[in-house]
Amino acid sequence: TDFQSAPSLREQLLYVWVLSLICEEFRQKAKMYFTELWNILDVLSSLLFCLGLVFRLTTELFYTGKIILCIDFVVFCLRLMAIFTISRTLGPKIIIVKKMIMDMFFFMFLLSIWVVAYGVAKQGILIHNDSRLSWIIQGAIYEPYLIIFGNFPKDIDSDIDSCSMNGTDPLKPKCPVLNENQMPAFPEWLNIIMLCVYLLFVNILLLNLLIAIFNFTFQEVQDNTDKIWKFQRYELIKEYYRRPATAPPLNIYSVFHYFYLKIMRRNKPRKHNEFKIQLKPEVEKDLLHWEGLMKDRYLLSARQEQSQRTETCILDTSQR
Amino acid sequence: TDFQSAPSLREQLLYVWVLSLICEEFRQKAKMYFTELWNILDVLSSLLFCLGLVFRLTTELFYTGKIILCIDFVVFCLRLMAIFTISRTLGPKIIIVKKMIMDMFFFMFLLSIWVVAYGVAKQGILIHNDSRLSWIIQGAIYEPYLIIFGNFPKDIDSDIDSCSMNGTDPLKPKCPVLNENQMPAFPEWLNIIMLCVYLLFVNILLLNLLIAIFNFTFQEVQDNTDKIWKFQRYELIKEYYRRPATAPPLNIYSVFHYFYLKIMRRNKPRKHNEFKIQLKPEVEKDLLHWEGLMKDRYLLSARQEQSQRTETCILDTSQR
Amino acid sequence: TDFQSAPSLREQLLYVWVLSLICEEFRQKAKMYFTELWNILDVLSSLLFCLGLVFRLTTELFYTGKIILCIDFVVFCLRLMAIFTISRTLGPKIIIVKKMIMDMFFFMFLLSIWVVAYGVAKQGILIHNDSRLSWIIQGAIYEPYLIIFGNFPKDIDSDIDSCSMNGTDPLKPKCPVLNENQMPAFPEWLNIIMLCVYLLFVNILLLNLLIAIFNFTFQEVQDNTDKIWKFQRYELIKEYYRRPATAPPLNIYSVFHYFYLKIMRRNKPRKHNEFKIQLKPEVEKDLLHWEGLMKDRYLLSARQEQSQRTETCILDTSQR
Amino acid sequence: TDFQSAPSLREQLLYVWVLSLICEEFRQKAKMYFTELWNILDVLSSLLFCLGLVFRLTTELFYTGKIILCIDFVVFCLRLMAIFTISRTLGPKIIIVKKMIMDMFFFMFLLSIWVVAYGVAKQGILIHNDSRLSWIIQGAIYEPYLIIFGNFPKDIDSDIDSCSMNGTDPLKPKCPVLNENQMPAFPEWLNIIMLCVYLLFVNILLLNLLIAIFNFTFQEVQDNTDKIWKFQRYELIKEYYRRPATAPPLNIYSVFHYFYLKIMRRNKPRKHNEFKIQLKPEVEKDLLHWEGLMKDRYLLSARQEQSQRTETCILDTSQR
Repeated sequence: TDFQSAPSLREQLLYVWVLSLICEEFRQKAKMYFTELWNILDVLSSLLFCLGLVFRLTTELFYTGKIILCIDFVVFCLRLMAIFTISRTLGPKIIIVKKMIMDMFFFMFLLSIWVVAYGVAKQGILIHNDSRLSWIIQGAIYEPYLIIFGNFPKDIDSDIDSCSMNGTDPLKPKCPVLNENQMPAFPEWLNIIMLCVYLLFVNILLLNLLIAIFNFTFQEVQDNTDKIWKFQRYELIKEYYRRPATAPPLNIYSVFHYFYLKIMRRNKPRKHNEFKIQLKPEVEKDLLHWEGLMKDRYLLSARQEQSQRTETCILDTSQR
Repeated sequence: TDFQSAPSLREQLLYVWVLSLICEEFRQKAKMYFTELWNILDVLSSLLFCLGLVFRLTTELFYTGKIILCIDFVVFCLRLMAIFTISRTLGPKIIIVKKMIMDMFFFMFLLSIWVVAYGVAKQGILIHNDSRLSWIIQGAIYEPYLIIFGNFPKDIDSDIDSCSMNGTDPLKPKCPVLNENQMPAFPEWLNIIMLCVYLLFVNILLLNLLIAIFNFTFQEVQDNTDKIWKFQRYELIKEYYRRPATAPPLNIYSVFHYFYLKIMRRNKPRKHNEFKIQLKPEVEKDLLHWEGLMKDRYLLSARQEQSQRTETCILDTSQR
Repeated sequence: TDFQSAPSLREQLLYVWVLSLICEEFRQKAKMYFTELWNILDVLSSLLFCLGLVFRLTTELFYTGKIILCIDFVVFCLRLMAIFTISRTLGPKIIIVKKMIMDMFFFMFLLSIWVVAYGVAKQGILIHNDSRLSWIIQGAIYEPYLIIFGNFPKDIDSDIDSCSMNGTDPLKPKCPVLNENQMPAFPEWLNIIMLCVYLLFVNILLLNLLIAIFNFTFQEVQDNTDKIWKFQRYELIKEYYRRPATAPPLNIYSVFHYFYLKIMRRNKPRKHNEFKIQLKPEVEKDLLHWEGLMKDRYLLSARQEQSQRTETCILDTSQR
Repeated sequence: TDFQSAPSLREQLLYVWVLSLICEEFRQKAKMYFTELWNILDVLSSLLFCLGLVFRLTTELFYTGKIILCIDFVVFCLRLMAIFTISRTLGPKIIIVKKMIMDMFFFMFLLSIWVVAYGVAKQGILIHNDSRLSWIIQGAIYEPYLIIFGNFPKDIDSDIDSCSMNGTDPLKPKCPVLNENQMPAFPEWLNIIMLCVYLLFVNILLLNLLIAIFNFTFQEVQDNTDKIWKFQRYELIKEYYRRPATAPPLNIYSVFHYFYLKIMRRNKPRKHNEFKIQLKPEVEKDLLHWEGLMKDRYLLSARQEQSQRTETCILDTSQR
């Protein structure tokens, strides 16, 4: 990922590829487009790409452009997850993940209250009037958040070099309050008790509550996911059927061809035959006949089975 | 959170707000008040606030007052969790959390035995007669407790600078026992084995036991929580209905108004009409009639359904 | 826990207490004593205590005695878990813990294979012919074991001070192999891949397998634990009933009294009336009669219920 | 594990042992050999051993040979897991582990997308045009992967000594981008937000999804594993039955004997009587008779039970 001021050849090829992808997206932009999550991701990634590209070609905002392109890469990767919809094993999992994200969203409310309560109290006790917002947020929210994942902050009192006494060094947090003997003034036992209770409730109680919620959701959803997934796969296949035959970096030609067709024969819009196979009349009649037969047979067997069901039998017998 | 000796304007506004909240609480202080957890938290936070405010306005106890206000912030945050009772998704979760706290409470007994057993033994083997209680507690309880959450203490033998040989430096723990060759005298293999067994039983066995307990509780409670939550939401709505219309910082007027009313018309106590809608007699009669009809219809359908239940049918048939 | 050469007054009091506990244990040493786990722990703790006490009173083995007493403390703490058998909530949990320890025991076989496989391979690749057994064990078993709990070793290649090149410093591990350019000779990518695979299989696969096993065991055992626990509580109450009335530090008198009685009236052994209430003959007859009545009534209701069970009814009807 | 240039006596003994194991494997190399996983592991370990042995006896590739032998040790250890198939408790677990590895394999796709997305974006923002592939991979894949297991990288901005500014020191990563004031140019808040989201989705959502998947698989598979395991144990016993009687280091004689037999009496191939007991004709007839009787009795009882099943009874009754 060499990243010079002037884009290299490989980079330019990448740009062509992504632009062809964007063209492809434009072509699809029909009604009911923004209803699906994946399409929103598509558009977002395209917009970010264009913005990043413009920034990247300037000299002042060169670094900003690079950052935007990096974020765009994340969006592209998440978009990639849509491909798993094809897989028999991973497809249903992605539906479950969507459900779990909803669970987690509500769970975050509970979590954030604990994080903010502990973080602000700890910061207030330890540090006296830090005026720099970034360090306040880092101490009051970021550190308690990392503790959840097992990353404990180092003991502040042990090393005096890692903090600046007046809060003037922008790379270091402010030191905790000292009393007149140059000793830490805050009651350490209080901090320790607060940390212990915080760990108990967040790392043990809330995280395990989340595991239990996920377990419950998973077992509930597992049975229905198979059906939902089949519908989704059908949608995906239909979408790829409509797409031009060539892969993205080469589909620019097909896009040009498409626009050419549209402009020239505007009066005669080509009907898109979605998955329809044109049959001769007699064959179609036969097919309809066969379908009617099958429908009758299915209804008959369903009625028969229903009449032999245990509950029905019992009711019949007792009412005889 | 600038925190000067003399309270700033923003701080004074906050004080007025909290005091109005406290007035509000006083107004509610009816019978059956202390039965609920949330009300206890309310009172606790009000008391802490007053105490902290008094301390904060003195000069000697200024820092103590700040600490009390920080703790009060934690209580306020936890009180905030009562708001989630409104939410359809989070409301039942909070009931489950209460159940889980009971589970965890008993679990703490099991855990604490292991923590104390390991911690005291480790401290006794490593360190000889430390007379400072704070460092003993830190070594015997706090460190083994943090190990549960993945925060291992650094190896003590590797750096001689982080401990004080005679236990005189108040910021450093006492060094482990050395023998006459200035080498650590304690058997390191014993410490390692103790740590391994401790990790195995606490981090693997007990924590996973807790996960299993939570899973079990969750699946048991999940079905009933919905009903309990509906009752709780009704209580919450009733409480807010009784409250004055204006939001806390502006409700001081309404409180004054309330006391004025109470003092003036003491002979004619205003009847509090809780959620009751005054209906005209004929409308009320119709409503009662309709309710009676509905009750009969429900009882009929319930009896019919009961008679068609499978078990009843079978019993009938076999006894014919 | 001041620990001087000559035992202090508080320490001597503790010795008297523990010795009285041991006397109590001797008194109980009836048949079928060693069948239960708790009794084995009792005896072990008593033996360790005596051994530690003897060592502690010498001067050469003073430190060894202290270590033995520390280990004895751990055994005492684990023995304390038997008290939880009384509690309605924790009693069944302890039965489940016993089951889980069995699960974990078998699980350790699976785990140890992975730990040893990774640890030995890592040690073999990194370090050339370390002749000190303690450092080999630490590198090949202890470090991979700690990785399971999230305690990663520091990168060895970054700091040359924390290892000794020839393995002569007893406090430092041997340095990894260097090639002729004084650069690490081992292929770092191989180590990284090995660590990644190890983490994947041990931290994710095996630990989560264990969680699933525990969940399964818990749900299976949960129903039966209540009954088992009631039997255990009965045993515990019976044991305490037989004990002398005074608490351990004061029961030395009762022990002396017991031995005195045994020696004096050896010809007339006092019959131990375990939980039996002496009743007058007519009252006992009435009780037996009432018990017979109750038995008949229970059998009748059980037979009636059996005949009304759904399966029986169906069978009857179809065979009529 | 002393590892000199010339193999020591103990090492040579080990070689003989492993070679005898390999001979044993050759003897077994019948049809349908490569179908089972364990046999593939056997062959792989044998090949690796030979390769490592050859390398180890040279002087240039001595260290490479050692590394190959270390990897071979890992394969041997994994092969050891097949022995657990014997155990009643661990046997079924190993079948479950195989299923879980399949689950985990698909899960890795989901995980890797998140790891790569976060890692590449972080690397792109922090570091400008590092040309060394190894450090790019370490920063973009290895570090985000370790974060999953709780091993956070140290803050890069705090210590300037641990990175090299121009990326010339091969032991240190390249420093993050600085602006003209020699301050870190990257927006730290962006990195922190990215890390927080990454932690939330990977450490909380995906890992707990995996726990739920494993729980589901475990409960589904648990019932069938017992049967599968009995078949596997039968296979294992059959395999050991066919083996020569002596244990591996002494079975070289038996192998020689086997080849001797094969070469001498090539015309009369010894029929391998697998588990068959030669019976006298009359005894065999009795046995067949008894088996027929048993088969009839089982079929009768099965038919009877089927006719008494609840559903059948109900159907009979209602159709009478």
